Amino acid sequence: MEQKTATIIGAGLAGSLWAIYLAKAGYAVTIFETRSDIRQAEISAGKSINLALSTRGINAMDAVGIMDEIKPLMIPMTGRIMHSTKGELTYQPYGEEGQAINSISRGGVNAKMMDLAEASGNVSILYSHKCVNVDFDTNTVFIEKRADKSIIEHTSDVVFACDGAFSAVRYHGFQKLNRFDFSQDYIDDGYREILLPANADGSYKLDKNALHIWPRGRFMLIALANEDGSFTCTLFMPFENDEYSFDKLKTKENVDTFFKNIFPDFHELMPDIADQWEDHPLSSLAIMRCYPWTHNKVALMGDAAHATVPFYGQGMNGSLEDCFVMGELMKKHNEDWSAVFKEYQEIRKPNGDALQDLSLHNYKVMSQSVADPNFLLKKKFEHRIHQLYPDKYLSLYSMVSFSNIPYAEAFQKGKEQDTFIESIMKDYEIEKLFKMDGIDELIHHLFEDR
Amino acid sequence: MEQKTATIIGAGLAGSLWAIYLAKAGYAVTIFETRSDIRQAEISAGKSINLALSTRGINAMDAVGIMDEIKPLMIPMTGRIMHSTKGELTYQPYGEEGQAINSISRGGVNAKMMDLAEASGNVSILYSHKCVNVDFDTNTVFIEKRADKSIIEHTSDVVFACDGAFSAVRYHGFQKLNRFDFSQDYIDDGYREILLPANADGSYKLDKNALHIWPRGRFMLIALANEDGSFTCTLFMPFENDEYSFDKLKTKENVDTFFKNIFPDFHELMPDIADQWEDHPLSSLAIMRCYPWTHNKVALMGDAAHATVPFYGQGMNGSLEDCFVMGELMKKHNEDWSAVFKEYQEIRKPNGDALQDLSLHNYKVMSQSVADPNFLLKKKFEHRIHQLYPDKYLSLYSMVSFSNIPYAEAFQKGKEQDTFIESIMKDYEIEKLFKMDGIDELIHHLFEDR
Repeated sequence: MEQKTATIIGAGLAGSLWAIYLAKAGYAVTIFETRSDIRQAEISAGKSINLALSTRGINAMDAVGIMDEIKPLMIPMTGRIMHSTKGELTYQPYGEEGQAINSISRGGVNAKMMDLAEASGNVSILYSHKCVNVDFDTNTVFIEKRADKSIIEHTSDVVFACDGAFSAVRYHGFQKLNRFDFSQDYIDDGYREILLPANADGSYKLDKNALHIWPRGRFMLIALANEDGSFTCTLFMPFENDEYSFDKLKTKENVDTFFKNIFPDFHELMPDIADQWEDHPLSSLAIMRCYPWTHNKVALMGDAAHATVPFYGQGMNGSLEDCFVMGELMKKHNEDWSAVFKEYQEIRKPNGDALQDLSLHNYKVMSQSVADPNFLLKKKFEHRIHQLYPDKYLSLYSMVSFSNIPYAEAFQKGKEQDTFIESIMKDYEIEKLFKMDGIDELIHHLFEDR
Repeated sequence: MEQKTATIIGAGLAGSLWAIYLAKAGYAVTIFETRSDIRQAEISAGKSINLALSTRGINAMDAVGIMDEIKPLMIPMTGRIMHSTKGELTYQPYGEEGQAINSISRGGVNAKMMDLAEASGNVSILYSHKCVNVDFDTNTVFIEKRADKSIIEHTSDVVFACDGAFSAVRYHGFQKLNRFDFSQDYIDDGYREILLPANADGSYKLDKNALHIWPRGRFMLIALANEDGSFTCTLFMPFENDEYSFDKLKTKENVDTFFKNIFPDFHELMPDIADQWEDHPLSSLAIMRCYPWTHNKVALMGDAAHATVPFYGQGMNGSLEDCFVMGELMKKHNEDWSAVFKEYQEIRKPNGDALQDLSLHNYKVMSQSVADPNFLLKKKFEHRIHQLYPDKYLSLYSMVSFSNIPYAEAFQKGKEQDTFIESIMKDYEIEKLFKMDGIDELIHHLFEDR
């Protein structure tokens, strides 16, 4: 029997996990990666340093048995801590007791998956190898070696483009196909990362088991813990044309005054913020949609298919879930890739769209709603409903972050639930009922027969 | 004084007209065109053979004094003739007495403008020269010569990309810029052209001074006269997944039966339609949007900036209008290209969007509404209002086709008028009033004080 072969473009999160899936299925896998080996170099600028890993990502990694290796890298975050302008803190749990999303280093988890992929013996990763073209008729990719600019032609049974938001396979290949729909939409906001260092003794300056948010209406600052005691903080804000926008933070004084006034407790933790302002570049954020996701024996996965903005912390999770779905379909269709790809794009495209819609939607939730007492009351109400009727009610956040319910289904159900909850909160004085211990009675009344 | 220089990518309709504008302004213009000289070759497949030239296009050509040369190529179409399934004809004028849109050969008008551009002495057109890259910092384009694949670097004061829906400058240049928004959306319908030849004596088989439509709800056939007695007919229809779609017309028998049943009068004129079915390819249709349209000294014009579907007959007119607008701004800002480009994209982008929205909207009008008695009554009503109050009422069609009112403004005003007319038609029995000669009284009542 001839050796089955697969090519993956991109050794990022989706690419390295998908290589493990394919290796387990007996494929000889070649990964071509444009950048140099991140295990030997600095992580490239403009990429988030840490990410929020939740159920979908964990599920996808668990399916190929690698969670024991990943778990040590995770810092659980059980809820959000909101920081007000006066420095007051409000805690809001993400889910039930024991549920958490996890801060994890992008570089750390990626390096671990590369190690595991290579350890399988079936995967070879070639760095500084840039995809410059694809031939859909022969499943051939054309790869430029950075060293000498020579071009390799590499043919295999099947090709997977896991090469990110600016996918070379999509650009050089798919975008030239007749009837290929594509859009790249930049949002008005950019982001800048800031590293909040550990205390001198290596301890954390903030509670490491929470995602910290400084919600300020049209903009926000967030912080996620790193393993070394530091926090990676990200300021999301309009580029220009707003009361507070990046174009107004041109000088060190601008930056210092801005942080002193708007994020005073953060400024206290990091009084030299203005000095480090230029350490990371100002980056842009885009939603990229396209269809179809597959053509002949070539498939787009992860950000190459559905790059999103980071506000739901689901970009990585959604990409890893692509691997899980593709893996299930590979088994179901017995590696008949035409059948696999057909079903993959049909079931996965609506979920990619929903992931993007959810991400955009959550920017408003994070920057505006979380500071709103009514929003917090609603969350509390939802939380209690779920406690009393766990099978009948799961909040949208929980469906997205703590379940494997397809994104599109979760979003739709979330909207219906939201309409229902809003109407109840209009008809009943929920806050009073909480104070009078009458809330459970109302919930039983509403949900008993639902 | 040094010679002013400009580069144009693409010698199509926008490129050749814009070259005339620039030559008149004293620029030495170099045009690079991928294809061979259309004056010496067949027109490339998939391009419409004839187009509808209306006021905006005429205005743009008139501004550089070339209308005397273009007029002889025009075949005026004063209205639509609708062909029913039973072969009944209904005529509907497009505007007032003496107003017409004009069938014109794409190749003919393009060749004439190339002649005029070259005759200026300031323009040289290089064919089989393909743009493969652009450097925004130095206004340099990189051009591959088809003959020997060698690359020319060509630098000038300013660069205009008039290279169509699949613009190389947009693809190789703009699409790689940070924060460049772009989308290509294919509609579900494709088209196939059919040549209805002249009679043996060279005469036309249909009235040449009308645009012929066979509206069939979800799809339609149209026909525009050519100078040689023939008609270029185009069938627009879904590719697949419909009661009538291209994927169902696989055999000659399918085609013959389809035309016999659905377009019986056309089939009588062209009983061998099935034999010629494969002469022209089945082509797709897309809307392409992007922004910004300019970067440094490089600007997108025409289809490169706002490619649209052909249902309002405004693709060419809108592109030529770009030249007129750019020409006015060039004078206004005294050739300060930074200022010209800033204003060009700010005022022109909303009109490009409106052009596209109008085009999509008119597919429904042409394929569905024009066969609807209520639509015809509405048109008749609008027509009468305009006759009585020409300064107060201009139909949307007239604003788009017979005026230079910016597309966005026309579309907005058209929507408001439509709401108004619809409400009047709900409140009054317009058809009866026409029969009872009471319609003028109603119109006076409605418009006297407006």
